[in-house]
Amino acid sequence: MYIKNAWYVAAWSADLATAAPLAITMLDEPLVLYRDDAGRAVALEDRCCHRLAPLSHGRVEGRDIRCLYHGLKFAPDGTCNDMPGHTAIPKAMRVRAYPVAERHSALWVWMGDPARADATQIPDFRGPDHPDWAMLPGRMDYAADYRLIQDNLLDLSHVPYVHRASFGRSDARINDAWTRATVHVAPLAQGVHVTRWLTDTPAQPFLGQPAGARVDVLNAFDYLVPGIFLLTTRHYAQGTAQRSPREAPTEAPLFATFSCQAVTPLTARTTCYFFAYGPWMRHPDAVAMKDGYATLALQAFNEDKTLIEAQQRIIDADPARPMTLFDVDRAPVQYNRLAASLMEQERR
Amino acid sequence: MYIKNAWYVAAWSADLATAAPLAITMLDEPLVLYRDDAGRAVALEDRCCHRLAPLSHGRVEGRDIRCLYHGLKFAPDGTCNDMPGHTAIPKAMRVRAYPVAERHSALWVWMGDPARADATQIPDFRGPDHPDWAMLPGRMDYAADYRLIQDNLLDLSHVPYVHRASFGRSDARINDAWTRATVHVAPLAQGVHVTRWLTDTPAQPFLGQPAGARVDVLNAFDYLVPGIFLLTTRHYAQGTAQRSPREAPTEAPLFATFSCQAVTPLTARTTCYFFAYGPWMRHPDAVAMKDGYATLALQAFNEDKTLIEAQQRIIDADPARPMTLFDVDRAPVQYNRLAASLMEQERR
Amino acid sequence: MYIKNAWYVAAWSADLATAAPLAITMLDEPLVLYRDDAGRAVALEDRCCHRLAPLSHGRVEGRDIRCLYHGLKFAPDGTCNDMPGHTAIPKAMRVRAYPVAERHSALWVWMGDPARADATQIPDFRGPDHPDWAMLPGRMDYAADYRLIQDNLLDLSHVPYVHRASFGRSDARINDAWTRATVHVAPLAQGVHVTRWLTDTPAQPFLGQPAGARVDVLNAFDYLVPGIFLLTTRHYAQGTAQRSPREAPTEAPLFATFSCQAVTPLTARTTCYFFAYGPWMRHPDAVAMKDGYATLALQAFNEDKTLIEAQQRIIDADPARPMTLFDVDRAPVQYNRLAASLMEQERR
Repeated sequence: MYIKNAWYVAAWSADLATAAPLAITMLDEPLVLYRDDAGRAVALEDRCCHRLAPLSHGRVEGRDIRCLYHGLKFAPDGTCNDMPGHTAIPKAMRVRAYPVAERHSALWVWMGDPARADATQIPDFRGPDHPDWAMLPGRMDYAADYRLIQDNLLDLSHVPYVHRASFGRSDARINDAWTRATVHVAPLAQGVHVTRWLTDTPAQPFLGQPAGARVDVLNAFDYLVPGIFLLTTRHYAQGTAQRSPREAPTEAPLFATFSCQAVTPLTARTTCYFFAYGPWMRHPDAVAMKDGYATLALQAFNEDKTLIEAQQRIIDADPARPMTLFDVDRAPVQYNRLAASLMEQERR
Repeated sequence: MYIKNAWYVAAWSADLATAAPLAITMLDEPLVLYRDDAGRAVALEDRCCHRLAPLSHGRVEGRDIRCLYHGLKFAPDGTCNDMPGHTAIPKAMRVRAYPVAERHSALWVWMGDPARADATQIPDFRGPDHPDWAMLPGRMDYAADYRLIQDNLLDLSHVPYVHRASFGRSDARINDAWTRATVHVAPLAQGVHVTRWLTDTPAQPFLGQPAGARVDVLNAFDYLVPGIFLLTTRHYAQGTAQRSPREAPTEAPLFATFSCQAVTPLTARTTCYFFAYGPWMRHPDAVAMKDGYATLALQAFNEDKTLIEAQQRIIDADPARPMTLFDVDRAPVQYNRLAASLMEQERR
Repeated sequence: MYIKNAWYVAAWSADLATAAPLAITMLDEPLVLYRDDAGRAVALEDRCCHRLAPLSHGRVEGRDIRCLYHGLKFAPDGTCNDMPGHTAIPKAMRVRAYPVAERHSALWVWMGDPARADATQIPDFRGPDHPDWAMLPGRMDYAADYRLIQDNLLDLSHVPYVHRASFGRSDARINDAWTRATVHVAPLAQGVHVTRWLTDTPAQPFLGQPAGARVDVLNAFDYLVPGIFLLTTRHYAQGTAQRSPREAPTEAPLFATFSCQAVTPLTARTTCYFFAYGPWMRHPDAVAMKDGYATLALQAFNEDKTLIEAQQRIIDADPARPMTLFDVDRAPVQYNRLAASLMEQERR
């Protein structure tokens, strides 16, 4: 049920402290992350090969980590290099090592065949430290199948219902614009690209427009394997949508926001959701608005969480019950077809 | 494991507020109850046909309820009558609607074939608003199979043990009368009728008898499909039981109490128990005694709950272990035979 | 997965009050323990044969216990001797009775064939009331398979890692002595005997040695079927280990401590761990040191519990994953072989 040959976000960089190992189960596999004495991140199987105790209860020593049950020590490549009281260490004494890369303020772990790990394939995530956007990193743990979260992100027609009071600001002119919008879905090599114009919506005060002004807002996102969501929202003068119905016009927008997100499956029914969301730095008040956007995101993503966890419980009470999809589901259907074909390739 | 073609109590009327949908899983099926803008109760499957989100997270709009995931709206008959952004609505877009009737201060839901739903078959429940009895509605959620609660109600020989301090008032003369009583069990078309005389018990002070007076108390109940318990207790002058050993005598009793109860299976191991219990209104202090009887009932029914949930845990630890029934179990055995034959008919 | 024909510790004597029945599930079987009116302990199946309610919710009456569901009363041999309202009691009305013995401040229950129960086979446990040792009884409930706790006790090479700060007093000279020690494992009829010398460790202040003095400490334990751990630690003048490398020398030690422990499986994933630990009474401050040793034991055994419960979660997430044992595991391997052969004999 998971794509294995992919880079998954395992943590925000800031969440992995020096010398304190961090346990995370990803794709049903227990991992321990730690930083060695040079600050480099290491990811190992969180299960000592001796008696299966978690290495995350252990102690970092230099580049290595020592199991604090019977004292075996493991190097970043997973080999055991100390067995207290023993000099000859059997080759079988090793744990699995996972390729790790630190990019965009996040730690990315390759969950598949290590020989195929290539850190240049990590998408241009533009994390919370990106200079163009004023963002704070957030995370949320779901008691739900990652695919329900994925389907939620891929079909934003839920915004005027789930987020009517947060992103929709309880404003019928905004929520109606979402309902009216025409959605364009385009395939990407590693995902889908989805756009919609929200036309004729009230300009927010900080856009510096005359009182009562309306704007057209272009909402565009990529959803990429294995669960990377990159959303840009751009505000333009009213009428822009009509001139440039399918894509962003060439002129600079009045204002923009960006959100990078990652959906990481932990187990069949638990998922970690990483997110950052904020205004562009070209707005003079961007830094001042940073906290407000982070709070808004947290409110909105909790709305999703409440609903999706309830949906999961309904599904689990009768797993045979089918969904009935229709054309709002084009993007999830396209993405899920791509993901299924990648999983099928991995099985072969 | 459930009788489907039957009216089940889903809630007390007072517990379903206007416009706030109420989720309840009954017989392993998720339901949403709501009142439309005219106050009429509606019961639908609590699972939007689109992506299986619970409608109970939705919003009542007029006679309908709107799913607050992607905005589909459903009528009381379960048909979808609004799909935001769409005009042609496929017939497949519908949820199951359940017949509902409001009677005796309770909401009754028919869980079987809607064509067979006939609200005139709802038993004469005499709910908490019945003019003859001073009762308050109560409910309790059990972590137990509904059949354990049913067997408990059908065999009141547990009263002098489980309820020795509540209904038995820690009085050996009352508890002994329960142990001595001869039990009569008679079949009914839809259940069983059970009676016993508790002879020679101390008259309660409010009966207005001389100090030290004794009374004979007739305890009689119907237990009806699918879990309706109607119990009347009548106090008479000492010696009445000998004159009228099998049934109520023709003269009016000195005092009486009534209890209506409903056992509604939620899932295989959760059950909702609805109850009301109180004195008859002919006693001048009936209204003043109402709260005291409700408190006594709550104490006693919690005694049952503690014991039955413990019994359930013992059973689940070794489900193959058989019970050893004897003649106190005549009423449960008779009722369970009837219920089994009804379930067998439904399977055919 | 359990040895049945064995005496298990079910409780400390002090934990079974007069007249208040105590429920304990042992080896997946529900038991009720109670003291009769003469203070004698009784152990019965905690499941009334009638409707499977727990007798532990019942009431002790003389030598017997009465079920407080429908009033059946059972004698210490498990036979029903009162069925309210009935005179002829069927032979089938009985519950299983378990042999019990009270020894060494503990209640021992025989879980197998009662005909084979022989209380003289209870090991010399030397419980908390033993005159030679100043000990307080303790207990701890684990969410783990009893075999993980057993393997932990059988291989004390975990001490310098798990207990580096408690038993190892964060002192490298002590922890290193544990790592350096040569372990001797010898078979016993009902278990294994394990010894190691911790040489050249700092003398504790209360040994009355000159400042900077070193001692040799002999650590020796028996681990006996079905989970009895008896550990003696003796402190001697430096050099003693060299003179008497395999066993205790003939002279009296400078100081000693003792610990008696019992590992009682409750269910497949829950275990009760009973323990007492303290200094010998020959030390003039033994009584004053009693509480300190009990606190140290509690700290150390919580260190084990934290680690073992984490190990259990790792194992349960992928139960097929094998352990990789090596020579520190000699004692657990020997003991587990003995236990497996006893279980195999019982199956035949």
